[in-house]
Amino acid sequence: MRIALGVEYDGTDFLGWQRLSTGRTVQEALEDALSFVADAPVEVICAGRTDSGVHARCQVVHFDSDVVRAPRNWLLGANSRMPRSVCVRWAQVVDGEFHARFAARARRYRYTILNRDVRPALDARYVTWERVPLDVNAMHHASRALIGEHDFNAFRTVACQAPTSRRDMQAIDIRRDGDLVHIEVQANAFLHHMVRNIVGSLLPVGRGEARAEWVGEVLAGLDRSKAGPTAPAQGLTFLRPLYPAQWQLPAEVTL
Amino acid sequence: MRIALGVEYDGTDFLGWQRLSTGRTVQEALEDALSFVADAPVEVICAGRTDSGVHARCQVVHFDSDVVRAPRNWLLGANSRMPRSVCVRWAQVVDGEFHARFAARARRYRYTILNRDVRPALDARYVTWERVPLDVNAMHHASRALIGEHDFNAFRTVACQAPTSRRDMQAIDIRRDGDLVHIEVQANAFLHHMVRNIVGSLLPVGRGEARAEWVGEVLAGLDRSKAGPTAPAQGLTFLRPLYPAQWQLPAEVTL
Repeated sequence: MRIALGVEYDGTDFLGWQRLSTGRTVQEALEDALSFVADAPVEVICAGRTDSGVHARCQVVHFDSDVVRAPRNWLLGANSRMPRSVCVRWAQVVDGEFHARFAARARRYRYTILNRDVRPALDARYVTWERVPLDVNAMHHASRALIGEHDFNAFRTVACQAPTSRRDMQAIDIRRDGDLVHIEVQANAFLHHMVRNIVGSLLPVGRGEARAEWVGEVLAGLDRSKAGPTAPAQGLTFLRPLYPAQWQLPAEVTL
Repeated sequence: MRIALGVEYDGTDFLGWQRLSTGRTVQEALEDALSFVADAPVEVICAGRTDSGVHARCQVVHFDSDVVRAPRNWLLGANSRMPRSVCVRWAQVVDGEFHARFAARARRYRYTILNRDVRPALDARYVTWERVPLDVNAMHHASRALIGEHDFNAFRTVACQAPTSRRDMQAIDIRRDGDLVHIEVQANAFLHHMVRNIVGSLLPVGRGEARAEWVGEVLAGLDRSKAGPTAPAQGLTFLRPLYPAQWQLPAEVTL
């Protein structure tokens, strides 16, 4: 039987999603808990791996198990065995053809910047601090060049192993809410460090250090060394992947 | 010279505001940092003491010092000496008659409830988890009995040392934002545990376990043992005290 889960985590204390021999990861915490519930090894596949320190509001995973458990029991069992910084939000039986990664048509991330002259105390795990007042309007204009299907080679890390760097950027919404600036991005898929590198290139525009047109020039140049620095992980949250309605997943993750 | 500060803190790792011999408190962290900047002992007076685990968006304090420092230098010096979970947001010279506690005409708190069937992973330090779906409308109706000047004896802890329990409740706003329920309360002043005891009495109404009228009956009965249990500290944030305009404080804390 194939089961899909919606998983929320605070990435602060994890070395990212993917299981490593060198430290605590979200995948390990989840697989260990599910394996305990199943009393057999369980391996999960996720919609999008996240880096060390990156959070998730609704990561989606699937796994197969011969063990018969009601979805609610997978959820309760896993939550009782996982650290407080991870939880399963929902669990449901899905079609055997569903694949958390390959069935996803889009992924949505949010990057949050605390834009004020003193460092954060509250919410410090969830924001990146920028003390120079940001021109959100200029950042919005700069981001327009990224909308649509492009080769995002300039915005991926050298370690990125994706065979192609073409991606379809579906939306970039930038808004200010008091001291906070939220940047929400949605694409069919993202390259490694792509969101953080885009944010790292929008920030110089917001600070008035680069022209709005510069971001489009960086994109066109395809040269990673010309883009801004990678923005810190802690401001980034994977909001959710999005799937076609045919899979009958919760509304939050359905297109 | 008298200086006022706006102070933000994450109360998770503190034993509350007030200096204790038994553990780390916000007052101690702040006074130690200011004393280092002044190179002389500094004692602060706050607008409202908070309990262990309670957060503050903008606590206000004042202190006197003979040492001449620009307000900006008090701020930068203190922030460089304090743990990451506390920061001074602003500092300014104030009239020698200003008193952070006695000049405040009102205090505003927010209590945040995560209302869903699974425990939180993200924001776990800032919310109280309630799994029973809350009827926010019923909670609003119940709260109407508390508006105005009343004897709030039923909603203070037995340890409360205030000489009178009459307080003027100026506003209670309850709203749902997705899975979150926010309860914002404003009064001229609060008794010890008053916000948490009010929330603890609104929750049974929200869960459908008590009638909306029950909260008014508890208030009228003046008997602490009849009210609901004290809601957990972590959902509570002291948003700000409010002062008359004459003190020329930042807009955030001015009536």
